[in-house]
Amino acid sequence: MEKSIDVGILGATGAVGQQFIALLAEHPWFRVTWLGASQRSEGKAYRDASAWRLASPLPDDIARLGVDAATPGRAPKLVFSGLDSSVAGEIEGAFAQAGHLVVSNSKNYRMEPDVPLLIPEVNADHLGLLDSQALRGWKGRIVTNPNCTTVVLSMALAPLCQFGLKTVMVTTLQAISGAGYPGVASWDILGNVIPFIDGEEEKVETEPKKILGRLRDNRVEPHPARMSAQTTRVGVLNGHTESVSVALEQHPTPEVIIDAWQSFKGKLQLMELPSAPARPVVYLTERNRPQPALDVDRGRGMTVSVGRLRPCPVLDYKFIALGHNTIRGAAGAAILNAELMHREGLL
Amino acid sequence: MEKSIDVGILGATGAVGQQFIALLAEHPWFRVTWLGASQRSEGKAYRDASAWRLASPLPDDIARLGVDAATPGRAPKLVFSGLDSSVAGEIEGAFAQAGHLVVSNSKNYRMEPDVPLLIPEVNADHLGLLDSQALRGWKGRIVTNPNCTTVVLSMALAPLCQFGLKTVMVTTLQAISGAGYPGVASWDILGNVIPFIDGEEEKVETEPKKILGRLRDNRVEPHPARMSAQTTRVGVLNGHTESVSVALEQHPTPEVIIDAWQSFKGKLQLMELPSAPARPVVYLTERNRPQPALDVDRGRGMTVSVGRLRPCPVLDYKFIALGHNTIRGAAGAAILNAELMHREGLL
Amino acid sequence: MEKSIDVGILGATGAVGQQFIALLAEHPWFRVTWLGASQRSEGKAYRDASAWRLASPLPDDIARLGVDAATPGRAPKLVFSGLDSSVAGEIEGAFAQAGHLVVSNSKNYRMEPDVPLLIPEVNADHLGLLDSQALRGWKGRIVTNPNCTTVVLSMALAPLCQFGLKTVMVTTLQAISGAGYPGVASWDILGNVIPFIDGEEEKVETEPKKILGRLRDNRVEPHPARMSAQTTRVGVLNGHTESVSVALEQHPTPEVIIDAWQSFKGKLQLMELPSAPARPVVYLTERNRPQPALDVDRGRGMTVSVGRLRPCPVLDYKFIALGHNTIRGAAGAAILNAELMHREGLL
Amino acid sequence: MEKSIDVGILGATGAVGQQFIALLAEHPWFRVTWLGASQRSEGKAYRDASAWRLASPLPDDIARLGVDAATPGRAPKLVFSGLDSSVAGEIEGAFAQAGHLVVSNSKNYRMEPDVPLLIPEVNADHLGLLDSQALRGWKGRIVTNPNCTTVVLSMALAPLCQFGLKTVMVTTLQAISGAGYPGVASWDILGNVIPFIDGEEEKVETEPKKILGRLRDNRVEPHPARMSAQTTRVGVLNGHTESVSVALEQHPTPEVIIDAWQSFKGKLQLMELPSAPARPVVYLTERNRPQPALDVDRGRGMTVSVGRLRPCPVLDYKFIALGHNTIRGAAGAAILNAELMHREGLL
Repeated sequence: MEKSIDVGILGATGAVGQQFIALLAEHPWFRVTWLGASQRSEGKAYRDASAWRLASPLPDDIARLGVDAATPGRAPKLVFSGLDSSVAGEIEGAFAQAGHLVVSNSKNYRMEPDVPLLIPEVNADHLGLLDSQALRGWKGRIVTNPNCTTVVLSMALAPLCQFGLKTVMVTTLQAISGAGYPGVASWDILGNVIPFIDGEEEKVETEPKKILGRLRDNRVEPHPARMSAQTTRVGVLNGHTESVSVALEQHPTPEVIIDAWQSFKGKLQLMELPSAPARPVVYLTERNRPQPALDVDRGRGMTVSVGRLRPCPVLDYKFIALGHNTIRGAAGAAILNAELMHREGLL
Repeated sequence: MEKSIDVGILGATGAVGQQFIALLAEHPWFRVTWLGASQRSEGKAYRDASAWRLASPLPDDIARLGVDAATPGRAPKLVFSGLDSSVAGEIEGAFAQAGHLVVSNSKNYRMEPDVPLLIPEVNADHLGLLDSQALRGWKGRIVTNPNCTTVVLSMALAPLCQFGLKTVMVTTLQAISGAGYPGVASWDILGNVIPFIDGEEEKVETEPKKILGRLRDNRVEPHPARMSAQTTRVGVLNGHTESVSVALEQHPTPEVIIDAWQSFKGKLQLMELPSAPARPVVYLTERNRPQPALDVDRGRGMTVSVGRLRPCPVLDYKFIALGHNTIRGAAGAAILNAELMHREGLL
Repeated sequence: MEKSIDVGILGATGAVGQQFIALLAEHPWFRVTWLGASQRSEGKAYRDASAWRLASPLPDDIARLGVDAATPGRAPKLVFSGLDSSVAGEIEGAFAQAGHLVVSNSKNYRMEPDVPLLIPEVNADHLGLLDSQALRGWKGRIVTNPNCTTVVLSMALAPLCQFGLKTVMVTTLQAISGAGYPGVASWDILGNVIPFIDGEEEKVETEPKKILGRLRDNRVEPHPARMSAQTTRVGVLNGHTESVSVALEQHPTPEVIIDAWQSFKGKLQLMELPSAPARPVVYLTERNRPQPALDVDRGRGMTVSVGRLRPCPVLDYKFIALGHNTIRGAAGAAILNAELMHREGLL
Repeated sequence: MEKSIDVGILGATGAVGQQFIALLAEHPWFRVTWLGASQRSEGKAYRDASAWRLASPLPDDIARLGVDAATPGRAPKLVFSGLDSSVAGEIEGAFAQAGHLVVSNSKNYRMEPDVPLLIPEVNADHLGLLDSQALRGWKGRIVTNPNCTTVVLSMALAPLCQFGLKTVMVTTLQAISGAGYPGVASWDILGNVIPFIDGEEEKVETEPKKILGRLRDNRVEPHPARMSAQTTRVGVLNGHTESVSVALEQHPTPEVIIDAWQSFKGKLQLMELPSAPARPVVYLTERNRPQPALDVDRGRGMTVSVGRLRPCPVLDYKFIALGHNTIRGAAGAAILNAELMHREGLL
């Protein structure tokens, strides 16, 4: 293990920032050498600036590392961002301007026409958008990963696009870790369901169209499928469960659809990136799966599990999808994006 | 309070049976004088035969009441049934044969053509089916209430039928009390979602069509709407939450739909039955409601709460509905059915 | 119902403030006419200043009531305080100075020698301390109720004092509502136990000695029992469960102890105060009780439930106690204190 | 990895049996070649006989393995038992009689004078009891591990024995997985605490005295400490939390006690057994630890985490201990016992 590439983390003390640190602790390429956070943390050792909340231990070297301001300058070229969206727009832009490659989990730039909204197995070619960011006068670049709910949905849908995806209806049952920390108050969610997540349905109805869209003339043509989402919060720590119905132009049998999921690879697996799961999508045959408690960590949290495919009396098929919202849906997604870019020579 | 009508409870020791006892404790008309259960309980005092699990206290007189076998004979004419479906078919049939009026929460007779599947506010006229039960040679009758998920959905849909209900898609987040006791193992549901409930989707796609159907020539013509359901279990004690999308033939505005819910009354309220809620359906304007923890007890558990009405990019409208699955969805529903029948002179 | 006494609520938008409003909605004497909160809320209608989080509905008249600054002046004489302890000291003092009778749930004045730490059934005579508050130059007075954990423990211990209470060891399993709102993050408590509550053990080891102490010469002599507490947080919404062991100087039989609990009345019940439970302490004979889900609302949340009395191999007896932390342990306790003072002619 | 030793599993389809299979899947020495279960499962492939409930996958070779009757004959010499105590007495005895070495997690033989109740780090010398089992006429032997709650407590107490352990008081907050499957009904535990676990307090007050006792003349003299336990169930999946107070004859400082925990090794670690954690006990300095959600998997579930050491106003010190009840408290404990016996040449 060489760990030859220095990386920084923006928003290092937050929930996504901690997940970045945990996942990068064992990473074969990336070595965390810089941590940026808000002024409140600046100048402190990381262990004093953050309240570590993950079951995996805080690595000693990170614990001692000093926290810098969230401004370019001392950071290495490659910077992961777990910044809150209230500040991510300005800060990430400043880093890109200054020549950094920002691999962001924040929503701010996701829908910008010149910014890839990337799932390596699905739309690696969207990296072709990067060149046009030079028009902004940026010396660096920004790449984004989707919203946590969108990743799970898009990976379940990508293998279906070959059958002419026309319509998608989804109701989500989302884990509380998706709201960051402190996020959802226990008073609100213990033994309860909250049938509303601010801004989430808009993302879920919009982002997949860009992800599944076609790159043409340096632009992404959104996928034409119609999408409707209802998003809810349930008392689960990790793992977004999604109840999906789809209409397709063609009429594949269930076996053909399951085979499409099981054999789904994308460009990525060929390259054997460190964070890429052996199988991006796995179909489970048990009638009561996938479940967050049992399936969320499949592929070290990078595999989307699908199950219960059956005919839909209204559209064509319905099924359940599940993915790890803070790994495949956030920090792990961004790390995989950075790995892809390294392999593509874009670092 | 006169409590002039003696009633019996079949399946008195089970989860629904206990709910019957709790709700009838304060009932102005019905006095529980007979309890029937399996052989294991026969001959014991109720307090020794059952493990009381409700927060409301077990009434002293019921605690001392002896448990009889689940056979007709000593039971009063009116009998509520919370029997498990594995035995309800035979036992309820025997009681009807013997002249009892069985008001059942079990699934066994719900879809029989000559048995009303009743929600008093929605289809009180379906009581007209009762006469044809004489053709079975029964001296008594059977009336059923719907599955707990179906009640909530049907009450939310009934006010929409006037707009030409064409299509319904629903994903449910169901409480564990719907599975009875011991029901769902804590090992399976703590911090988890189970995306499968055996037989539930079939009921939800079938029962509402009978409930919303039209009585004609002593038969119910099923409502023609297409229905698709995905049913899941979540870690909630009481209250089924349902994420619904509908297509309508007409194009009512949201205001017109909300008014249809708010003003929904049915035949029932006019008669002021004791268990009838002042309002069967209530629309909540807060953007994050209804929630089981906050709204499940509305109308003493007999009101269905609806919220978040908004356009659906695929069908016409989407919204959230919530109801109490063991009150409006089980014991309370049956009691309301019996009240209606009393007022109609059918006892 | 006359509602002849105007009252104000300090900290009206917080968790305890909301509980005050809910409990006072149906109160026969007290009418809420004034709401005080932080500057952020000042001038707004209550419905706009607060996010109502209780299952019981926000009364319409309170919803429309304007929120005032937390300063004396326009408030009625009797003011309930659910202020956060970071500000309660100064604000409550200012109100007492200005002539208000402050019935406080905050910790700031609880251990002051001239302030009653009151549980009406236990130490109503401690109201005798009030006169000495005149020495502070206050035209008004402050009365406090104990910490939520302390109330439950003290009510379970009070009937044992007659046997010579020597030693108390307690481990608590506390509900999240005790931490206010937003309080405990769901990320921290879902499926978890937090074995630490800041400052709680100190209160539990100190406050009961004052409550159970003897008023002599205008001072309270602390009860001499030795007390040790370990306090933990569990995923329960309402209801603190306490595992208690005690050593006693005398050697009462279990039957004698149970009778002491069952017959415990205090001065209060004689006077039939509106919020006083028929029985302050109830002993449950089932071997697996009390439980928060089943017993927390006993006596409309004002009764402490006790169970599982048995010999302790180390001390003399061990048992389980349970009480409602936001009713008997907070807002309900304060209201009962005010009722007592009204009856004693102290308003 | 050789996997040179064949092992069988009694009670293979139960909760502990599944945990045995999961832990042995990667074991360097032990190869599962035989599965025994009740008649209901006999003759079926394991995948058909059991409902796999663990997040780790069921190994393919085990899935295909046929389930045998729970009778000696075809089983290998070394047999792990996760049998229910209702049948373990007879079946384990029959296996011992027939020459098997039974490494049992069941309670039936734990307190037998000639059966080691073993925690390798604590009382490895108790294996000396084994010889006297020949007096029963057994060709084989039985070794047991303690109750899940006892293991955690005993490991936390063992390093304190050198200071003259006099008194132990403990209140437990136990995970639902300790009750097996289906075990605790979700209806009973969601958002609740159950302050009673049948038979548990007796075990916790008895077993540690044997474990911490001294082997002399082929008998174990029980440790003389007085012990009192209150055991409760909370809504946690894995991990028993224990609130402990102790009295000691000597007066060590907190630093000395913490050092005793941190340096605790036992005979075991010297031998580097595969399942032995690098550190059997770890002291955590954060004031709100240990917590099940964060600390239960320490040392692959084999380390007991301790925290919050502070003076006890009644006894001498109080602290919190936590351990994984199905690994360190059940299957992992038994496997470690077998590893020790293998190293001691007792297989």
